[in-house]
Amino acid sequence: MRRRKYEHLVPSSPDQPPPRIQIEEPAPRVDCGRYPAKACVGDTVDVFATIFKDGHDILRAVARYRAPGSEEWHEAPMRRIDAHVDGDRWQGSFRVTAQGRWTWSVQTWTDAYATWHSEIERKVAAGQDEFSGELSEGAVLLRDAAVRAGHGADADRLTAAADHLTVDAALDPELLALTERYPDRTGASVLDAPLIVDVDRPRARFGAWYELFPRSWGGLRGVQEAIPQLAELGFDVLYLPPIHPIGTTNRKGRNNALQAGPDDPGSPWAIGSAEGGHDAIHPDLGTIEDFDAMVATAREHGIDIALDFAIQCSPDHPWLKEHPEWFHRRPDGTLKYAENPPKRYQDIYNVNWDTPDWEALWDALRDVVMHWVDHGVRAFRVDNPHTKPLPFWEWLIGEVRAVQPDTIFLAEAFTRRAMMRTLAKVGFSQSYTYFTWKNSRWELTEYVNELAHSGMQDYYRPNFFVNTPDILTEYLQHGGPPAFAPRLILAATLSPTYGIYSGFEHFENVPVRPGSEEYLDSEKYEIKDRRLDGPLLPLVGRLNEIRRDHPALQHLGNVTFLETENDALIAYAKRHSDDVVICVVNIDPHNPQEGVAVIPYELGLPPVFPVVDLLGGERFDWQIGRNFVRLHPPYRAAHVLTTVPR
Amino acid sequence: MRRRKYEHLVPSSPDQPPPRIQIEEPAPRVDCGRYPAKACVGDTVDVFATIFKDGHDILRAVARYRAPGSEEWHEAPMRRIDAHVDGDRWQGSFRVTAQGRWTWSVQTWTDAYATWHSEIERKVAAGQDEFSGELSEGAVLLRDAAVRAGHGADADRLTAAADHLTVDAALDPELLALTERYPDRTGASVLDAPLIVDVDRPRARFGAWYELFPRSWGGLRGVQEAIPQLAELGFDVLYLPPIHPIGTTNRKGRNNALQAGPDDPGSPWAIGSAEGGHDAIHPDLGTIEDFDAMVATAREHGIDIALDFAIQCSPDHPWLKEHPEWFHRRPDGTLKYAENPPKRYQDIYNVNWDTPDWEALWDALRDVVMHWVDHGVRAFRVDNPHTKPLPFWEWLIGEVRAVQPDTIFLAEAFTRRAMMRTLAKVGFSQSYTYFTWKNSRWELTEYVNELAHSGMQDYYRPNFFVNTPDILTEYLQHGGPPAFAPRLILAATLSPTYGIYSGFEHFENVPVRPGSEEYLDSEKYEIKDRRLDGPLLPLVGRLNEIRRDHPALQHLGNVTFLETENDALIAYAKRHSDDVVICVVNIDPHNPQEGVAVIPYELGLPPVFPVVDLLGGERFDWQIGRNFVRLHPPYRAAHVLTTVPR
Repeated sequence: MRRRKYEHLVPSSPDQPPPRIQIEEPAPRVDCGRYPAKACVGDTVDVFATIFKDGHDILRAVARYRAPGSEEWHEAPMRRIDAHVDGDRWQGSFRVTAQGRWTWSVQTWTDAYATWHSEIERKVAAGQDEFSGELSEGAVLLRDAAVRAGHGADADRLTAAADHLTVDAALDPELLALTERYPDRTGASVLDAPLIVDVDRPRARFGAWYELFPRSWGGLRGVQEAIPQLAELGFDVLYLPPIHPIGTTNRKGRNNALQAGPDDPGSPWAIGSAEGGHDAIHPDLGTIEDFDAMVATAREHGIDIALDFAIQCSPDHPWLKEHPEWFHRRPDGTLKYAENPPKRYQDIYNVNWDTPDWEALWDALRDVVMHWVDHGVRAFRVDNPHTKPLPFWEWLIGEVRAVQPDTIFLAEAFTRRAMMRTLAKVGFSQSYTYFTWKNSRWELTEYVNELAHSGMQDYYRPNFFVNTPDILTEYLQHGGPPAFAPRLILAATLSPTYGIYSGFEHFENVPVRPGSEEYLDSEKYEIKDRRLDGPLLPLVGRLNEIRRDHPALQHLGNVTFLETENDALIAYAKRHSDDVVICVVNIDPHNPQEGVAVIPYELGLPPVFPVVDLLGGERFDWQIGRNFVRLHPPYRAAHVLTTVPR
Repeated sequence: MRRRKYEHLVPSSPDQPPPRIQIEEPAPRVDCGRYPAKACVGDTVDVFATIFKDGHDILRAVARYRAPGSEEWHEAPMRRIDAHVDGDRWQGSFRVTAQGRWTWSVQTWTDAYATWHSEIERKVAAGQDEFSGELSEGAVLLRDAAVRAGHGADADRLTAAADHLTVDAALDPELLALTERYPDRTGASVLDAPLIVDVDRPRARFGAWYELFPRSWGGLRGVQEAIPQLAELGFDVLYLPPIHPIGTTNRKGRNNALQAGPDDPGSPWAIGSAEGGHDAIHPDLGTIEDFDAMVATAREHGIDIALDFAIQCSPDHPWLKEHPEWFHRRPDGTLKYAENPPKRYQDIYNVNWDTPDWEALWDALRDVVMHWVDHGVRAFRVDNPHTKPLPFWEWLIGEVRAVQPDTIFLAEAFTRRAMMRTLAKVGFSQSYTYFTWKNSRWELTEYVNELAHSGMQDYYRPNFFVNTPDILTEYLQHGGPPAFAPRLILAATLSPTYGIYSGFEHFENVPVRPGSEEYLDSEKYEIKDRRLDGPLLPLVGRLNEIRRDHPALQHLGNVTFLETENDALIAYAKRHSDDVVICVVNIDPHNPQEGVAVIPYELGLPPVFPVVDLLGGERFDWQIGRNFVRLHPPYRAAHVLTTVPR
């Protein structure tokens, strides 16, 4: 019988059998390595793998990692996770200190000297008293280590130890430690293919967003004037719906009326008019100079301006004439407006992604984004990305971040899980979520656990907007003003990134009609008179301050839900290193609720520990186990506790 | 800015953008496709993928599959699984009709006509009454379909429909069905890489094993004589511990004594003497002609002979002289016996897998297996495979099955999960399990759910031995004879493959000492006088008969555990097509137990359904919901029920 080759198994040479150590299920790994995992500058990335070998040898493993653009590999030791079932799961960690794509892998080998050392230990413990054979083996291993050590003191010590090896010397931990410095990695196993961690700036994970329509704030100059107060309130990102010229053909009127009145300003998402398209500014809002000044003021205050990127055109957009081939046409040559029967969007045209001129279309869209990047924009909220091709997003985000890696993309997709997840996988830095519709304790628990612990945490960064111009939830409609604080506190403490659309702080909660999530007199179709004087803003400011003070609130995967013995109370703890925050929220806006928060032993706190309420200032002694809680809305919707010295 | 290429995204041409339909998480897929999934001839393989596209288009998908050695692709339709969360999971099925490696993939495309048809339906429902634009589009789609249909009646019908298209005609389901026959697969997406299903003969999944030491049955001729009765009892595989010459140097005596007495026969696993090695037969057991005759008789009775493959050598094995380079040596040149301190195995030598002569060693071991394959052996129980390199097993099993695909390999590894799982992944057809140590209701439920529903079912086929020469569990020691029936029934009904080591049917349960799982006067070190007259054999025979009659018991992934409201009762149902088996077992060997079996709606049975107990013959009317059960050991340890016509 003729033997087939083993190259399909693993790399091998005729002198050396294929590597025997198995490396399985490396993590983080997204879709078998098809997409990168995500991290932020300054993060410690924990990497894992299942590592094992036939027999009983002692293994060593390292995580190998490489910074973006570097050829140099670094190594971090990996160790068994003792708590893991069966003990074959290993963990290593390394810190990512620059933006871009970091590469990592695993290397593992057999430690022959440590294996020999362990056998001697066990034989001595078992009472064996004749070791001449064993010592002759140990001497060979020590001499091999001496060769690897080269010349110098270590080599001399290893050679001397080999020359005079006794059982006592064999048990010497210092000799063991010395050999570890000169490992023999012959026959080492490595991961089949290295994996990627894509590293963003920290704001991709952690930030407070505020959304406003500039036309309700006096245009770009008015926005610029509001920025210092927004910074004072602790906001990190200021998101503006489209600022471009708005079409007049088929313009929508107030409350989405099919006919606009003569003074109706139209929806900002009906982009484009004779005055320009996606790279122009609506004349009523200001000039490009005003825009640049606003961006500069924002930057001075540490705030990012986030623009809307909505790939659709009003009937008056210049592209319809310049590039009719980019749009859907009927056989008679007329262009088709957007529709998803029975819904019709007569004021916008979608692009035709199947156009033979698709490369030019992709380029033009990339140029739009780069135009605003060139004007200092480092964040984009992308409108309905789930109705555009995934390969386009993967390409576009890659293109933009290759030039300006600071750029953050937020996916505004409210659709099925698979699409929302894959938008994050292909490159979106952040994503909207189902948070607005998760109101009961079990819904919130299940959903946040899915985001934090199902594997999604490796690539999907939630942005918990409490409302949007399209989403006024029933909970807010029916709960009235007392419903706003708990939702705000949940968003700000559950998710590292959260957001508010202006009006929330005024308790705006009247729908256009019963059963609708649209606002009455929606700002999408008319101009409001807005300013930062809502009664909820002090709480917003305090929450943003707490979030900045507490690293525990700047992460997602560290959340643990706590038993409350009352479904109207939801409780959770977050710990990051020594920082611990414990939240208990009354999600019943109408009634006081009593219950407990059960602190688990695994949180690592002492049996009794003092806490302070960061909202109210009270101090309590809490304990491992049950802690009584009573929360009375609207005066006291939640505890946000942290541990303090006694 | 210069655009980078999109080839890294997906295949594309300048005229056509990258495919927009996403295919994710195909299943079954083992370790990202590194290893094949398993199936058996005659199985219907269910394949899955998450399939979705941006926007709202209607998609079609097929599973493409190819038989081993064939170039021809077949297609099976895939459909959405309605019950799946979000509805993006699709399923297809195909039947595997030959042994070997089947290849499969997924192809998916947009159905433009069905999308158009659906939009017309929704517009009509919404009251739209002007369709000239829509009909002009539909006509184009129909004419395209006519071109794909070529010449003939279908093409003529499509052209005629295009020429006279009305809204009524557009809604015609027959016209829709006609277009489906000529799909436009332009821009179709396919799986990045096809996946493999490795197909064995059905016995790899389903069979009853019996283990006996031939020397206790009068050698190979005695075994041959027992075969008809074993066949009568419904056994499918007869497994023999090593039948090779046994070494005399350092031979173990009775009860594993370090010194053998003059008449002690030694352990069959101390393989090799002057009379030969792994390809020889112990002279006391018979000749190669006796062996061939035994195999022939077994084959006549539909029984497989399974040999033990134990890669270790007694000090007297010919290889130690012929190939000293294959063994571990001390620096002084002496060979090292096997040890795992403080355990020592002075009667055996392990091979040195790191020998520079490893290719010759691998070949020699392959030749041993092929020697027995040439003598008609089609099953091997491999001793301690977890102490030998995984690449060796992947190579060896591939080599043997390339020549004789009927060959079944059972992994006797009792070690940590990762190694046991990977032995199955690299090619072992079946595996021993932790079943013997899973005795309580929660332990059995958790463990069987892990085997059946965690993904392991794609590649890991359990063999539930109730005992082995090394494993006499505390449950059997302390439970006494009444403990044997429930364990037998659990093994035979939970796992498609199960096994008995001879003596079990005699209720043998005395350990060598308290706290040990070794038998007193173990057959490993002495010769017994065995015959098939144990009091448990009638139950064994009946269970094997039931197993053959009921396809539900021939599968693993179809098990559903049932609520019993009593932890001493475990209940489960298995359904395969119309065949339903419901088991309730009293796992308390000492006391009668009462409880219920709660039949869930999801099992698909009528509200009330008659059942018959296949062990006792009684008939009951059972129902969806709670059914009272009382089981009194030893007379009645279990119900094994099946549905019957009223």
